[in-house]
Amino acid sequence: MTIGIGLLGMGTVGAGVAGILTTPAGRHPLVAALQLRRVAVRDLTRPRAVPLPVEILTSDPNAVVDDPDIDIVVEVMGGLEPARSLILRAIAAGKSVVTANKAVIARYGEEIGAAAAARGVYVLIEAAVGGGIPIIEPLKQSLGGNRIQRVSGIINGTTNYILSRMAAEGADYAEVLAEAQKLGYAEADPAADVEGGDAADKIAILAGLAYGGPVPREAIPTEGIDRLDARDVSYAAQLGFVVKLLAVAQLVDAPAVPAKQPPSGLQLLDVRVHPTLLPRSHPLAGVNGVNNAILVEADPVGEVMFFGPGAGAGPTASAVVADILNIAGIRQATGGHPGGGVDPLLAAGSWRQCALVDGACTTHRNYVRLRTTDQAGVIGKIGTCFGQAGVSIQSIVQFEADSEAAEIVVITHEVLEADFRRALNAIAVLPEVASVAACLRTL
Amino acid sequence: MTIGIGLLGMGTVGAGVAGILTTPAGRHPLVAALQLRRVAVRDLTRPRAVPLPVEILTSDPNAVVDDPDIDIVVEVMGGLEPARSLILRAIAAGKSVVTANKAVIARYGEEIGAAAAARGVYVLIEAAVGGGIPIIEPLKQSLGGNRIQRVSGIINGTTNYILSRMAAEGADYAEVLAEAQKLGYAEADPAADVEGGDAADKIAILAGLAYGGPVPREAIPTEGIDRLDARDVSYAAQLGFVVKLLAVAQLVDAPAVPAKQPPSGLQLLDVRVHPTLLPRSHPLAGVNGVNNAILVEADPVGEVMFFGPGAGAGPTASAVVADILNIAGIRQATGGHPGGGVDPLLAAGSWRQCALVDGACTTHRNYVRLRTTDQAGVIGKIGTCFGQAGVSIQSIVQFEADSEAAEIVVITHEVLEADFRRALNAIAVLPEVASVAACLRTL
Repeated sequence: MTIGIGLLGMGTVGAGVAGILTTPAGRHPLVAALQLRRVAVRDLTRPRAVPLPVEILTSDPNAVVDDPDIDIVVEVMGGLEPARSLILRAIAAGKSVVTANKAVIARYGEEIGAAAAARGVYVLIEAAVGGGIPIIEPLKQSLGGNRIQRVSGIINGTTNYILSRMAAEGADYAEVLAEAQKLGYAEADPAADVEGGDAADKIAILAGLAYGGPVPREAIPTEGIDRLDARDVSYAAQLGFVVKLLAVAQLVDAPAVPAKQPPSGLQLLDVRVHPTLLPRSHPLAGVNGVNNAILVEADPVGEVMFFGPGAGAGPTASAVVADILNIAGIRQATGGHPGGGVDPLLAAGSWRQCALVDGACTTHRNYVRLRTTDQAGVIGKIGTCFGQAGVSIQSIVQFEADSEAAEIVVITHEVLEADFRRALNAIAVLPEVASVAACLRTL
Repeated sequence: MTIGIGLLGMGTVGAGVAGILTTPAGRHPLVAALQLRRVAVRDLTRPRAVPLPVEILTSDPNAVVDDPDIDIVVEVMGGLEPARSLILRAIAAGKSVVTANKAVIARYGEEIGAAAAARGVYVLIEAAVGGGIPIIEPLKQSLGGNRIQRVSGIINGTTNYILSRMAAEGADYAEVLAEAQKLGYAEADPAADVEGGDAADKIAILAGLAYGGPVPREAIPTEGIDRLDARDVSYAAQLGFVVKLLAVAQLVDAPAVPAKQPPSGLQLLDVRVHPTLLPRSHPLAGVNGVNNAILVEADPVGEVMFFGPGAGAGPTASAVVADILNIAGIRQATGGHPGGGVDPLLAAGSWRQCALVDGACTTHRNYVRLRTTDQAGVIGKIGTCFGQAGVSIQSIVQFEADSEAAEIVVITHEVLEADFRRALNAIAVLPEVASVAACLRTL
């Protein structure tokens, strides 16, 4: 039984997928059953890295989606539209869809998932998060017996490359970004990466799978690395930490402020993206360059981590083909009759209502850098402000005092965000404090 | 649709599985569809960690396997027999099987796989390797589009615990083993762990999945850590290496000795278990304690690594339940009609003939420790022996010379094993060389 594959888009990922499908030797034998039958491209005349028969190329993506010989539609064109509409059209035609499009899934995942469930088809998204790292499938299938407490990860390769070089060379953000752009590790418009939006898309997807309910993407507190100062990377290193852009989704069992209890049946989650100080011994601290890694903490498995290349044509194509194979495998099990039942693990429907917790009710460790006058007693005053707000401190260290000014770095224990903010407000108006120069989360 | 589960064995793993199945809240909703209907235990009167209705307990494992209300048989009793016979009997009765039994699968996987394929049922083994780490399913499903070049891993927690402590404390093997036994990290009879047999079982299983053909378990060259000297751990550290018990399976595209080409159609593999020096920057070098990690190198995905707890009731139970869920998910997709098709990814049949390469034809980097008299010229003579055999050397370092003797450590470049052995034979008979005290592989 051969299975007809239609490809929407023939950029680097599309070419990677076509490359695998057209050279099955040495791969799983099921790859040989996948037949690339239609490919939608922007420009029919452009030379291709992977040679394809000219008659399967079309500039009309609807011709791929509507083709009755296509069983699985692979969307690797990117962007919100027409990608979203084409995915919905394919589902309506009874075809399963494989997509690498994190932006569409993070925003329209609920709509797309509902359409797929109604039609009894699959929409698989392994390539949307973590490039070639198998993470979507393990979350959906291998960890299904667990209660997932936290998913945290380095899931944006561009920012991890920049942070790794900032740490290794003591270089400034702007300088490293410019070089990353030259080397092709950062886009000409790097906003989606460096401001954290790409990581927020991805953690929204992971949270939705881990907790069985869609997460409001636009409500995720997101802070990028674009305002990160090289000083903080250096001070963090001197204190035994590494700075990483971390995306986190965790279960909030009981909010710290009892008045903020959620309505019953609603699962509260703390989901966020921000630069974070990790102790050097943390499993994610050693993840450098464009690599990604996702750490899952769950009961009863404990801590498992998935590591690998977070982007690139080859890794992403590997993930796309994994999804195609999964759908093809299920088709063989069901004798090729779609529209019967679906495998509920692979389909990954939602079974819970999730809501984001009020940030003021969460607890964190914090790193704060203060610019102060170099006066005796300033550390005492800062300590008092924290103490009066109920914020307990792990360390206060003074760095690089010159004749006029000093920099004081405070690391707190795990404290209630509301208390921490109250302390910072009191500190900001101390006459000895010129500014609260930086404020970062700490694990 | 509920699915009947029968459990063979109620030790720590069995209790962990029962614990998950009887507390579905907060897990994947499919867990609630799994009904634990029959449990075979050794002693009916023993108190249980997980309270179970007394009427589902039996001391006769056949009563579980033969029960028509049981859809999936879970074998967590361990040992070769009666485990193997019960698995085959369950398959013959048309039931899918989930097992954590690496010893049975490494030895009888071919027989069991053939029986399952003939009957159209699944035998899933996620818990057999890497404890709670999802590695079997990613190899079978998520990486199916790849050509796998190498699978290497730290897949025995006991030896990794011992090696981690030897490295951290400079302690002797025997001393750390005794403590590990006291703490329950090593068995009273530690042979299967410390001599490498457990790791060999597991790499045989991983190789069979990665390369699509059974690997002759008994032919795998296996060296444990039981003769490892604390000196070598210490010298390795001084040279920038960490010693780990590594299990490796890799594709041999063209053996170094052309006369040893395999018959056409046969896939040559290099599969082995031995203590190995890893550069401190290697992704597996930081895996410490009872954790496991598996690194997969494949085209086009690149390097992906899976890390987590390699043993323990909770992690192993998580893996067992993952397999149960997968079978349950497929049953829902097929409408509960077993014996139709099977998902070829999940079934993981064999599609290639594999054979092990002649070790003399493989290439490696090596670490050698020589005890010598402390005479001028000895390093020159040793260097000459290596040179005459065509073995190129990366470093020769003399350690801890006293008035009578010296220790010389040589690290070679990647060289043909046959050449290396020839050089060692010549060195062993040099009058200045008292003994070849240690010889370890190096990455």
